[in-house]
Amino acid sequence: MAYDGTDFLGFQLQAGGRTVQGTLEAAVARVTEAGASSAVRVVGSGRTDAGVHAQGQVIGFRAPWRHAVPDLQRALNAVLPQDVAVVELGLAEEDWHPRFSARRRHYRYTILNQSLRSPLDRLYAHWVAGALDVSAMQAAAGDAIGVHDFASFGRPMQSSGAARAGSTVREVLSADWHSEARWVIFDVVGNAFLRSMVRSLVGSLLYVGLGLWPVEGFKTVLEARDRALAAPPAPACGLCLMQVDYD
Amino acid sequence: MAYDGTDFLGFQLQAGGRTVQGTLEAAVARVTEAGASSAVRVVGSGRTDAGVHAQGQVIGFRAPWRHAVPDLQRALNAVLPQDVAVVELGLAEEDWHPRFSARRRHYRYTILNQSLRSPLDRLYAHWVAGALDVSAMQAAAGDAIGVHDFASFGRPMQSSGAARAGSTVREVLSADWHSEARWVIFDVVGNAFLRSMVRSLVGSLLYVGLGLWPVEGFKTVLEARDRALAAPPAPACGLCLMQVDYD
Repeated sequence: MAYDGTDFLGFQLQAGGRTVQGTLEAAVARVTEAGASSAVRVVGSGRTDAGVHAQGQVIGFRAPWRHAVPDLQRALNAVLPQDVAVVELGLAEEDWHPRFSARRRHYRYTILNQSLRSPLDRLYAHWVAGALDVSAMQAAAGDAIGVHDFASFGRPMQSSGAARAGSTVREVLSADWHSEARWVIFDVVGNAFLRSMVRSLVGSLLYVGLGLWPVEGFKTVLEARDRALAAPPAPACGLCLMQVDYD
Repeated sequence: MAYDGTDFLGFQLQAGGRTVQGTLEAAVARVTEAGASSAVRVVGSGRTDAGVHAQGQVIGFRAPWRHAVPDLQRALNAVLPQDVAVVELGLAEEDWHPRFSARRRHYRYTILNQSLRSPLDRLYAHWVAGALDVSAMQAAAGDAIGVHDFASFGRPMQSSGAARAGSTVREVLSADWHSEARWVIFDVVGNAFLRSMVRSLVGSLLYVGLGLWPVEGFKTVLEARDRALAAPPAPACGLCLMQVDYD
């Protein structure tokens, strides 16, 4: 799935709010013979917060369908609103689960680093006016790689599976900053992420980039396992779920 | 000025609608000692239609200001909404006029050419699913270059100055299509443009690119000077006023 998170209260279903999950469940109910929207359950690889975008969210659902799979993709895209689209659709194995079978998630955080704000970029990038020391940010990001207790940077998702409920240990496989003209971009891949963890990592790495913390300050906060020490999470608009990998 | 045209009814002031001009006049009135918003007159290099964006619109206004020019830019950007920004601000000569002194306008039209619609690109590009013959579009665009009567592709702006009121003759200096991954981009520079002329040119060039017209079909329509023969104008979201040049 791809979606523009701007006008959603996030992925997860909420009473009385526009959510990606609710929008998808309504679309599946409408085009299949699943019955009412409440009879359809769409499960995502993970929950994105309000305002967070996706190019490669993966979801799963069960619904009766008599026609070809590509026809279902077309039918869903025809009824979905313009800010959500099914990029690819296939039949899953019976034991596949969008969240529990996922091995790696790739998120990208995009910063527009220039002195003036930019009306045409404001929905998909976080504007930072101050000069950023990208090599300091890269050096600090290296300390996030590996298996760590990321308690300083987020809480577990609610009901994220009995096996890791409560645990704040995650594995970050890669964490790379690069500059491209006036853009500063962070690509991070992990086995899984805590709630708001990427935005919280970015917020603290920005403190390093702006010179508010020394490079080692990031590691100190990581090792303290104390959310009170982390910088505020970076805004949702800059974040995009790029890809979810399965075996 | 840069602005995101999505939530504007266009540049020009209208009763009861949100316009770029009205937004700017209110901002100038608020930060200067010009008095009420109605006492400020903001003039643009040209009017952009509802939904059309700008990276380089040029405007002019007169207002009393006791401080430095950069302070006025900062003050305006502080009160302007997030979808409009003053990119650059300077003092003009007494006889300079944003519209009449302009020598060249550069517009860019952006097409997303892929089979699936893209939620994260929908506000700033026109999605075309069918295969496009970009070299045919380029060949036809060449016929637009030079001084022509563009009556097939638009009407004069209302009150666009006595000298050219009623005339539909304009000069196109360059008109270039290029592809860049899944993007197909049209850059057109002219001394001035008729109302909706760029979108109308793009609409007809898309007919050529989709194979609905032969390459020569474009020239036939141009020479007919008859709006009824042109293809429908391409949607506003793909269009952006990039730059206005003065002597």
